[in-house]
Amino acid sequence: MTRVHTAFDRPDPALVKELGKHSAATIHEAQGRRGALASSIKPVDPAMSVCGPAFPVRCAPRDNLMLQIAIAHARPGDVVVVSAGEYAEAGSFGDVLANACQAKGIAGLVTDTGVRDTAELRALGFPVFSYSVSIKGTVKETVGPMAEPVLIGGELVRPGDVVRGDADGVVIVRQEELGDVIDASQAREAAEAEYIAAYRAGKTVIEVCGLAPVIEAKGLVIETGLPGDAER
Amino acid sequence: MTRVHTAFDRPDPALVKELGKHSAATIHEAQGRRGALASSIKPVDPAMSVCGPAFPVRCAPRDNLMLQIAIAHARPGDVVVVSAGEYAEAGSFGDVLANACQAKGIAGLVTDTGVRDTAELRALGFPVFSYSVSIKGTVKETVGPMAEPVLIGGELVRPGDVVRGDADGVVIVRQEELGDVIDASQAREAAEAEYIAAYRAGKTVIEVCGLAPVIEAKGLVIETGLPGDAER
Amino acid sequence: MTRVHTAFDRPDPALVKELGKHSAATIHEAQGRRGALASSIKPVDPAMSVCGPAFPVRCAPRDNLMLQIAIAHARPGDVVVVSAGEYAEAGSFGDVLANACQAKGIAGLVTDTGVRDTAELRALGFPVFSYSVSIKGTVKETVGPMAEPVLIGGELVRPGDVVRGDADGVVIVRQEELGDVIDASQAREAAEAEYIAAYRAGKTVIEVCGLAPVIEAKGLVIETGLPGDAER
Amino acid sequence: MTRVHTAFDRPDPALVKELGKHSAATIHEAQGRRGALASSIKPVDPAMSVCGPAFPVRCAPRDNLMLQIAIAHARPGDVVVVSAGEYAEAGSFGDVLANACQAKGIAGLVTDTGVRDTAELRALGFPVFSYSVSIKGTVKETVGPMAEPVLIGGELVRPGDVVRGDADGVVIVRQEELGDVIDASQAREAAEAEYIAAYRAGKTVIEVCGLAPVIEAKGLVIETGLPGDAER
Amino acid sequence: MTRVHTAFDRPDPALVKELGKHSAATIHEAQGRRGALASSIKPVDPAMSVCGPAFPVRCAPRDNLMLQIAIAHARPGDVVVVSAGEYAEAGSFGDVLANACQAKGIAGLVTDTGVRDTAELRALGFPVFSYSVSIKGTVKETVGPMAEPVLIGGELVRPGDVVRGDADGVVIVRQEELGDVIDASQAREAAEAEYIAAYRAGKTVIEVCGLAPVIEAKGLVIETGLPGDAER
Amino acid sequence: MTRVHTAFDRPDPALVKELGKHSAATIHEAQGRRGALASSIKPVDPAMSVCGPAFPVRCAPRDNLMLQIAIAHARPGDVVVVSAGEYAEAGSFGDVLANACQAKGIAGLVTDTGVRDTAELRALGFPVFSYSVSIKGTVKETVGPMAEPVLIGGELVRPGDVVRGDADGVVIVRQEELGDVIDASQAREAAEAEYIAAYRAGKTVIEVCGLAPVIEAKGLVIETGLPGDAER
Repeated sequence: MTRVHTAFDRPDPALVKELGKHSAATIHEAQGRRGALASSIKPVDPAMSVCGPAFPVRCAPRDNLMLQIAIAHARPGDVVVVSAGEYAEAGSFGDVLANACQAKGIAGLVTDTGVRDTAELRALGFPVFSYSVSIKGTVKETVGPMAEPVLIGGELVRPGDVVRGDADGVVIVRQEELGDVIDASQAREAAEAEYIAAYRAGKTVIEVCGLAPVIEAKGLVIETGLPGDAER
Repeated sequence: MTRVHTAFDRPDPALVKELGKHSAATIHEAQGRRGALASSIKPVDPAMSVCGPAFPVRCAPRDNLMLQIAIAHARPGDVVVVSAGEYAEAGSFGDVLANACQAKGIAGLVTDTGVRDTAELRALGFPVFSYSVSIKGTVKETVGPMAEPVLIGGELVRPGDVVRGDADGVVIVRQEELGDVIDASQAREAAEAEYIAAYRAGKTVIEVCGLAPVIEAKGLVIETGLPGDAER
Repeated sequence: MTRVHTAFDRPDPALVKELGKHSAATIHEAQGRRGALASSIKPVDPAMSVCGPAFPVRCAPRDNLMLQIAIAHARPGDVVVVSAGEYAEAGSFGDVLANACQAKGIAGLVTDTGVRDTAELRALGFPVFSYSVSIKGTVKETVGPMAEPVLIGGELVRPGDVVRGDADGVVIVRQEELGDVIDASQAREAAEAEYIAAYRAGKTVIEVCGLAPVIEAKGLVIETGLPGDAER
Repeated sequence: MTRVHTAFDRPDPALVKELGKHSAATIHEAQGRRGALASSIKPVDPAMSVCGPAFPVRCAPRDNLMLQIAIAHARPGDVVVVSAGEYAEAGSFGDVLANACQAKGIAGLVTDTGVRDTAELRALGFPVFSYSVSIKGTVKETVGPMAEPVLIGGELVRPGDVVRGDADGVVIVRQEELGDVIDASQAREAAEAEYIAAYRAGKTVIEVCGLAPVIEAKGLVIETGLPGDAER
Repeated sequence: MTRVHTAFDRPDPALVKELGKHSAATIHEAQGRRGALASSIKPVDPAMSVCGPAFPVRCAPRDNLMLQIAIAHARPGDVVVVSAGEYAEAGSFGDVLANACQAKGIAGLVTDTGVRDTAELRALGFPVFSYSVSIKGTVKETVGPMAEPVLIGGELVRPGDVVRGDADGVVIVRQEELGDVIDASQAREAAEAEYIAAYRAGKTVIEVCGLAPVIEAKGLVIETGLPGDAER
Repeated sequence: MTRVHTAFDRPDPALVKELGKHSAATIHEAQGRRGALASSIKPVDPAMSVCGPAFPVRCAPRDNLMLQIAIAHARPGDVVVVSAGEYAEAGSFGDVLANACQAKGIAGLVTDTGVRDTAELRALGFPVFSYSVSIKGTVKETVGPMAEPVLIGGELVRPGDVVRGDADGVVIVRQEELGDVIDASQAREAAEAEYIAAYRAGKTVIEVCGLAPVIEAKGLVIETGLPGDAER
């Protein structure tokens, strides 16, 4: 017998919405370069974007039984996060289940196996981040954990952690750090806007990034002439 | 001396056209989860779509002599299927040969090596499914079989089998099963439409997929509370 | 102490512009099938296109210190070419540095590691060719060579060699061969236009490519009947 | 500031020794097919074997600062488990550190990056399980967690969990389940010995594995003749 | 219902034994560079060697039900050839089934998925050629074809074709070509012995391989001096 | 016409012999962590070891014409270094050519494609470092550069540079730096011997590597208790 519990705390939706204003890369940097899934998990279409609390589930490779059950138990706004063993040759999710998700208000899906019906997923506008696109069907045989922490893309995702995905990939924010990460993301974006303004005003990378002392400390000597010019 | 014979039976064009109304994933499921090529073979552009009888040919890696000859012998409506050893670093087909294909009415190309001139292929609207995009040229040295069965993407493709490719990838239908597969595909699409309607009407995955007995048979107990709630 | 020299000869901008009228695949063929980077280095978006003299720099994997410094020293029109060890899990370049590049007139970036902020790169229209898209940040620790030859994608790129990238990938042209390669590219395009015209006029691949003597020399016998027809 | 705590509970050494009598594959099966690291992590030599409590540490890719510090804080009998981002091109551990480990009585090393000095590691008889063998050196720059859970090979390893590695690979046993897993491993080995005896006595797989009802339930009909025999 | 037939013609054991005197590489060359499986399928130990008629079976990835059934139906001398989808993370065969095979006189196993208990397989001396070594267990769920042609390592293997594996990998010989391939292998080995004798007697590669006319025909000019010597 | 020149300066054999006393990893570190080929190029057997001046040659993938010609022109003591496009599925070198090499006194072979006859290579004791082991044959069609710099494993190898390979992999030493690298390797080995002696005498990694100031500078605080101990 396998016993699972589907209840867990979710973050304040207003904070989730606020986090979603920042890009995955900004959030990753703002929280100290943590939480990014492997680059092999990418959006089905670069226009796809998602932000919501994780509803994690573990499937066996080439088996989507627990994914179907997870869709039944996830709540509106959740992102279903499926750990299935980095198996490329299975299409575990398609347009029928995407309709099931949209009907319930599920925000998106992140998985380390394949999906299919990608033209329909684009048309539906349902954001899906996957390891592959495969037309191959799956079995419905294997029971596993749900609403418990799962490993995916080299990171641990716990129920209620926040999943943010965009064209660049997916980052995970710990639920208890959500407020701090939003603050840090806002600060980082403000700093980046200043950097961009400085570049557009003609400042150099050396000036904007304060590289002169770094270059000196590292012992790098940059000569603008050709090698051998000094001896001439 | 290598002797090849280019004649083989092709399926009824009306049936081929009918099959092409169904997606690769639907067809794969409808014929019992068979015939899908590996997910590494993908369309040059997600908008590309093809359906036609296979004209198979075997090339040596980084050698497109037999591909050129195959284009000369394929018939209008055929899909040229090139088995070339899963070699990524060769662009064996480009806009010039695509024009040759289009002039003859060839329906598309599927290959397990690379292609190039992808901007032009998109502009021409000639559907190409390949293992890679590579600008590297090929030699024209090696003779091999043509209009005989070839292995590609982990599947056997025989002359006259039907090739169906779309945004998700490529599936092969045995010529002698074509009618049955069309029937099964239509049935599956009808069933899927009912599923989608049920979801939109508020039914759950448990109800629509009949998962309750599966869950019970597998010994999965789903509790909606938190772990430990029962003891409290 | 590491000493670098940033001066090197650049090719005539008029010639660079002329080269840019030809596709990467055409140029690769025109110069004798040389200079193509590995197919794993691809544009962030298929619409991206670049042509300019290489400003090469070597970074440690997951470290973009030298890339930042290179941006400060590259000249308008240059393409910054970053060799960083084919490491997929690092986003070494994003929208802030792209703004720095655009402000200076740098023409584009080619790298064998990852980049991020791809939505913004598309919006800016700054051409970037990379090994991966990754949101993971980099350190700024390691000094290395700049404006010296680097290895990337299996090719050697020297300062001032010309980098041409488009939807198919990237090719390198030796600075001293630039004029010859332009001539050969023009000749090749003219020949390809003739081939295409011939195909559209109904000529076969056998005729256009002159394959009949090749087929005979290789001992290939093509029979249009079925195997065994002769014996019947 | 990064604060780490090095104390954690370790399992009873007598139990660890007992677990080490069973193979990694047996243990994996005995605990319900859980805990196996990815097959990409393999012994430097097939004769290497290890069993001990995990001392986990997280390194940045191509950076072994925290590995060095971990060796200083691990205790006799521990297996140092290094999560470093599945980076193949770095040799983060060699004969000098292996001597440091052996001098302290550390039992072995498991890592998802590379190691070097493999001839010396074989000669020393120090068991090392790694993702690659690489001669490339590492930096000592990046601080990270130590004696906290790490992700490696698709599994979570907590301090004090037991690491068992042999020629086939590595499996992790939760500390709190150690006694149960030993019991289950002993039971499985006893059952396997009976199976082997039955095979040697001439029993078939159908008999020993009780496959007849499975075959019937799955609808598999096995005919010993050739296809078509029935009709003849 | 799935119906399989286990009877098929096997080649003359005396011929199989004769073929086994030649290496896989020699046989591959002798039959015109055909029949070699992908290099990813390799012996568990370089000392392993096998030659016997193929008993092919198709398993689902991570599922060894049909492999177990195949062992029950294969005959003494057969090599069980398992096509299972190139899935690395499953150990579908180990020491218990190896004992079952040896008790029946089965000659060996070739598979495109993983195996385990490799130390025991070495001790037993049972030759196994696999895609990976993995400790992860498999399910026994999926029925599939047996004693029918399967695809593995990019080649088609039919029942009764001869499988020859050694340290270098695996090659397949068509049953109907067995006698010719033995003759050609003997001829090739005799020729190679002459080549080796010629090299040991001081002849050069140019002489032994008759490269002088090739070099001239290809337009290769080899000068023994330094570049520029002629002008000095 | 392709013109090649086979003459180049080779280093003092006494220095080459001296370098060969040091391991590839030691040399890589001693010369500032430069020159290591990718970890994918490994010895056919871990007991293989080589040191000698490079005789570089470039082959087309799956084509060993230039390798054969190179063997004819390399000198006793040379290591033939073959750049062939990282193509795994070709066995470009085997026991016949190994006999040709040994008869001439060629010291070894390094290649980024496959080799075969590995059992015979082991028996001959001829050191070979390759990207793969493959039984598949090659053609002899394509002319290319010889005794010119080649790219292999991500490094540039020039004629006369010294190639050192052992169980860990291959490193390249620039000919003009040979004396300095030997000195630095000796110094490094002496230092490593002291480190090992210190470990065996009971010193810690913190002491031997002088990590205390690094730990303090990086802001790492190591507490030997459990998290929360301080508050208790």
